Amino acid sequence: MATHKLLLLPGDGIGPEVMGEVKRLIDWLSSAGIAKFETDTGLVGGSAYDAHKVSISEGDMVKAKDADAIIFGAVGGPKWDAVPYDVRPEAGLLRLRKDLGLFANLRPAVCYPALADASSLKREAIEGLDIVIVRELTGGVYFGEPKTITDLGNGQKRAIDTQVYDTYEIERIARVAFDLAKKRRNKVTSMEKRNVMKSGVLWNEVVTQVHKREYADVTLEHQLADSGGMMLVKWPKQFDVIVTDNLFGDMLSDIAAMLTGSLGMLPSASLGEVDVKSKKRKALYEPVHGSAPDIAGQGLANPIAMISSFGMALRYSFDMGALADKLDAAIAAVLASGLRTADIKSEGTTAASTTQMGEAILKEL
Amino acid sequence: MATHKLLLLPGDGIGPEVMGEVKRLIDWLSSAGIAKFETDTGLVGGSAYDAHKVSISEGDMVKAKDADAIIFGAVGGPKWDAVPYDVRPEAGLLRLRKDLGLFANLRPAVCYPALADASSLKREAIEGLDIVIVRELTGGVYFGEPKTITDLGNGQKRAIDTQVYDTYEIERIARVAFDLAKKRRNKVTSMEKRNVMKSGVLWNEVVTQVHKREYADVTLEHQLADSGGMMLVKWPKQFDVIVTDNLFGDMLSDIAAMLTGSLGMLPSASLGEVDVKSKKRKALYEPVHGSAPDIAGQGLANPIAMISSFGMALRYSFDMGALADKLDAAIAAVLASGLRTADIKSEGTTAASTTQMGEAILKEL
Ligand SMILES: CC(C)[C@H](C(=O)O)[C@@H](O)C(=O)O
Ligand SMILES: CC(C)[C@H](C(=O)O)[C@@H](O)C(=O)O
Repeated sequence: MATHKLLLLPGDGIGPEVMGEVKRLIDWLSSAGIAKFETDTGLVGGSAYDAHKVSISEGDMVKAKDADAIIFGAVGGPKWDAVPYDVRPEAGLLRLRKDLGLFANLRPAVCYPALADASSLKREAIEGLDIVIVRELTGGVYFGEPKTITDLGNGQKRAIDTQVYDTYEIERIARVAFDLAKKRRNKVTSMEKRNVMKSGVLWNEVVTQVHKREYADVTLEHQLADSGGMMLVKWPKQFDVIVTDNLFGDMLSDIAAMLTGSLGMLPSASLGEVDVKSKKRKALYEPVHGSAPDIAGQGLANPIAMISSFGMALRYSFDMGALADKLDAAIAAVLASGLRTADIKSEGTTAASTTQMGEAILKEL
Repeated sequence: MATHKLLLLPGDGIGPEVMGEVKRLIDWLSSAGIAKFETDTGLVGGSAYDAHKVSISEGDMVKAKDADAIIFGAVGGPKWDAVPYDVRPEAGLLRLRKDLGLFANLRPAVCYPALADASSLKREAIEGLDIVIVRELTGGVYFGEPKTITDLGNGQKRAIDTQVYDTYEIERIARVAFDLAKKRRNKVTSMEKRNVMKSGVLWNEVVTQVHKREYADVTLEHQLADSGGMMLVKWPKQFDVIVTDNLFGDMLSDIAAMLTGSLGMLPSASLGEVDVKSKKRKALYEPVHGSAPDIAGQGLANPIAMISSFGMALRYSFDMGALADKLDAAIAAVLASGLRTADIKSEGTTAASTTQMGEAILKEL
């Protein structure tokens, strides 16, 4: 049995708590002889800043590059609101994405039937929802230069951010979206603002070419990102795979997540290019939710998004799709049994702490 | 009685139809001696391109600068998808905004009680909703330079867009938001991505300073634009006035509009700075909805957003708040009577064409 190298980066806030439940799962899988993992742990975000005055240490970056997969909790919190920009908690996550080349961020937005009523949307609008946002993650306004604040004198400052996209960056993310759609309902919707942004013009052009050249059998639609956002709120089920840039993807995937009413349940995968020799790809798995500093340390956090992110690692990094399916089924069964963490608690269901939820899922598995 | 100079720019798609209903209203107000308007009409968007190969002619720009207010329909449509970037329909609207200095875009998102069920959100989430998005409209990534596509050779192109904000641009839009909040529920929520964008850092800093210096009595909250978008979908009633940049404002105001289920009902105002001498400000009023080319020319369009935009002109440009209130009441009464255009038609209500809706509102008035 191959040994898989995992780097666990719990981060801040509820990160360590929800990561604890993934650890429990990993230990069990190892002791039951189902899979073999070698795990190491590192610091990222505010916790790295507190220890080393950086958002991730060089040592942990080396471990990250060396790992088969990174399991990432969450970063940030008011405690670090005033730290210098370059070492703010988010910088650690952004560096991991950029330095490891994790250009493809897959964010499924799935509505768990047991939780459909938790959404602010009507049941009919979201029941059975199953879409994926494919977000470009290493380009755009997140990393483009110049990115500066200049003092102009007279009490005036000028802030500049730069959105940059090259053809190859759009091509490779488009391929990820089309490949994914082929395994699903065969439809891709590309979103940009070509009526205002030159990067939107190029995005539209390149996605159209890749489609024509390599994926003519997949249905492709184009939407302006603003009206796409509207359509997402109006009738999300019209979509299958949505492909979009880094900033629009940030907004649209959060909105899609909120639609499901299951924010504490949603995982994500950030993938690099497949290495021609080793056939491996760098990967980082993280929940869509944040570090929720307000409830940290109280055993209130929902560990499902984190556990489910580990499930994506089984599927995308370790080719253990069958085990991932079992894990998904275990989560659904525990939810169906009525167990709920505080964020998804409703009348007539049973309250569970972070640990109780993690244990129940493991037992079901 | 003062004569107010109006420039009507119906634009494309359903623009001319809905503008027709505003004209009907203007004619009646004049003939009834309630207000005096001198109206002129111009071309913008695709219709200007068809006539002059530009998105707005120099002659119409002169008229626009000379008018007390511009009433704008909508631009764009598949017919002009392939025209050169510089003369695409949207360029006409963007030039009007920029050259007239219309930096403050006010977009109310109000849920009409009679239409609460048209929303994809649950009734309790949006009943009674009344928020305003204050969007910065002449800065940011819409107008920053460089904005280019360069051929790099090797089949690669590079697209660049630039987001630029200066202190004064953020200060003046913040003041508009705070002033508005003072007349409402006294709360402003500022949204940006300071964890990723330098313009977000400056935005946050300047809004905080303006608040401290000039509006300490107004409640100010800051949200990251992505989680702000989530909060908007989850529980929009927590907001009063939201102030944000050009691109986030584009996305967030469209989403807020869709939440209400009343997209065909929502007006907007784009205002310039108040001239010290004349005490006047340049202003453009337009519906939030687009040109809906698929239903153009069939008498199906809902004229309420357009009529209601004219109502905002009465309020903000001509100091006729009482008349604007009456117009709003007339719209609400017609809706309560059960009259509906196709976009908001539901069981048990009476179908109306664009003209019938316009006539009914006028009669009620
Ligand atoms: C934490 C932050 C930098 C990050 C982003 O903006 O990408 C987060 O919002 C996300 O969506 O993963
Ligand atoms: C038509 C387009 C250029 C415009 C924008 O992006 O500002 C529109 O979406 C809007 O919100 O007014």
